[in-house]
Amino acid sequence: MSLLVVGSVAYDGVETPHGKVDRMLGGAATYISLAASYFTPVKIVAVVGDDFAKEDEKLLADHSIDLEGLERVPGKTFFWAGLYSDDMNDRTTLRTDLNVFADFKPKLPESYRQAPYLILGNIQPSLQKSVREQMNGLRLAGGDTMNYWIKDYRDELLETIRQWDFLLINDAEARMLSGESNLRKAAAAILDMGPHTLVIKRGEYGAILFRQDSFFIVPGYLLESVFDPTGAGDCFAGGFIGYLAGQGFDLEAGHISRGDLSRAVIYGSVMGSFCCERFGVERFRTLTRAEIDARFEEFRKFTSF
Amino acid sequence: MSLLVVGSVAYDGVETPHGKVDRMLGGAATYISLAASYFTPVKIVAVVGDDFAKEDEKLLADHSIDLEGLERVPGKTFFWAGLYSDDMNDRTTLRTDLNVFADFKPKLPESYRQAPYLILGNIQPSLQKSVREQMNGLRLAGGDTMNYWIKDYRDELLETIRQWDFLLINDAEARMLSGESNLRKAAAAILDMGPHTLVIKRGEYGAILFRQDSFFIVPGYLLESVFDPTGAGDCFAGGFIGYLAGQGFDLEAGHISRGDLSRAVIYGSVMGSFCCERFGVERFRTLTRAEIDARFEEFRKFTSF
Repeated sequence: MSLLVVGSVAYDGVETPHGKVDRMLGGAATYISLAASYFTPVKIVAVVGDDFAKEDEKLLADHSIDLEGLERVPGKTFFWAGLYSDDMNDRTTLRTDLNVFADFKPKLPESYRQAPYLILGNIQPSLQKSVREQMNGLRLAGGDTMNYWIKDYRDELLETIRQWDFLLINDAEARMLSGESNLRKAAAAILDMGPHTLVIKRGEYGAILFRQDSFFIVPGYLLESVFDPTGAGDCFAGGFIGYLAGQGFDLEAGHISRGDLSRAVIYGSVMGSFCCERFGVERFRTLTRAEIDARFEEFRKFTSF
Repeated sequence: MSLLVVGSVAYDGVETPHGKVDRMLGGAATYISLAASYFTPVKIVAVVGDDFAKEDEKLLADHSIDLEGLERVPGKTFFWAGLYSDDMNDRTTLRTDLNVFADFKPKLPESYRQAPYLILGNIQPSLQKSVREQMNGLRLAGGDTMNYWIKDYRDELLETIRQWDFLLINDAEARMLSGESNLRKAAAAILDMGPHTLVIKRGEYGAILFRQDSFFIVPGYLLESVFDPTGAGDCFAGGFIGYLAGQGFDLEAGHISRGDLSRAVIYGSVMGSFCCERFGVERFRTLTRAEIDARFEEFRKFTSF
């Protein structure tokens, strides 16, 4: 069933120990949409400038992503550039040109408002909130955020996530949001803020799913080489919500089990791992659903005892 | 079946964010032996000074650990003191007084030489080698090492581990030993050095078991609070080899499966997690096999999907 993805579509410049790309398609909404498109029909809401390339639009369209909500305005597309450390666990932002993204106000086409699934990429919490409030008949809604909003827009963020079913953040953000350094305590505090499902992403170490009464931990996939971690967290999010949307799960109605959510976490991990195998979105040019399901089975094999 | 544990028995001074203990029982052989004692009969080879307390000897004896090989010599027992960082992922050594441990030459009582299982704690590689060569009829032998030996005693270490079935080290040590930053590549390189089984410990993030044809990953147990991580890696080692010895597995004879080894890794993780719940060896005063098996089942629950 339809999934609405809202967030940034951007151009990225990335340098890792494996090479350098000056300009390639990126942005949270791009990665989330591409990853989710393997599981469910996706509709995107984002803004790009008049420099947005036809071939990049084509990649999204080739994944059957509905582009009616991809707004084109005069000016340049959001540009970000970063440099990764040797072990790729740290990155330095070299440049952030918001360009047309500075004035992004998500506009939902009428045909989008009935989508039963919603994921909000990391944008200003008040914008996330406005999107959530324009939707009718949501079965499952949630999103991502970052240190900047947690620190300087705390009240706005708390008001926003109160209406969410799930929150996907990394471990440092979970500690910052909760004020607790222990992850179990951090998770308990965050589950009191609204979302009944919390996924804490731990980069190469995997992810943890927390609900009030249980948790599930998956280790990260051991890649032989990580080319570029850019977008891996967003691809995780896309795999997670994409799988749930594709299955038509309804969290509120109680039609979702710990097992369903755990499998969604595995699909998220699978999509994050594929993302790192090539620069930017390159891997999604060839990736097939059969490869995804094979890696899902690999996860089962290397975690079973 | 009998397990021989060789290594240090020490007194530790430890400060963590949860408190400070000036002097308590510690040392790799102590932690390995206590953890393994829940699974199999243990014999220890170590040296202590004349300050070694009766009550500390009693704790070991209460766990049915054979103390014939615990040598007592005039002087003071090895003393180490350390201070943990706020998140307990780093520690600073404040003091290392080798004392009687400086001249430690492992002496094996005649009754120890037929023990079928051997684990060598982190001591000088040539001493580890001399012990290995005094044993008859070993079914499974291996041990631990550290950055110091990898860096400054590389040839001696390589000669030593060539005779081992398993090597247990942490991720930083695996990278240093192999010269590879990627863990899969590091593991492949190390498995070419002799051991057919490699366990890479990742602290709070769990552990990975590597063999030539497969690997198994387990995430770390999420403790509500970590009081003191001292000895957790050694308790992991004790649980790992203790379980295999208790079951009578014979790696060389091919009587051991990936499943057996995976369960040994889980028991290792269980013992490491209990160790962190109290200062030093305190948790082992009350810990029961039933609690261990319950936590093993918890691991199954939070990793299954």
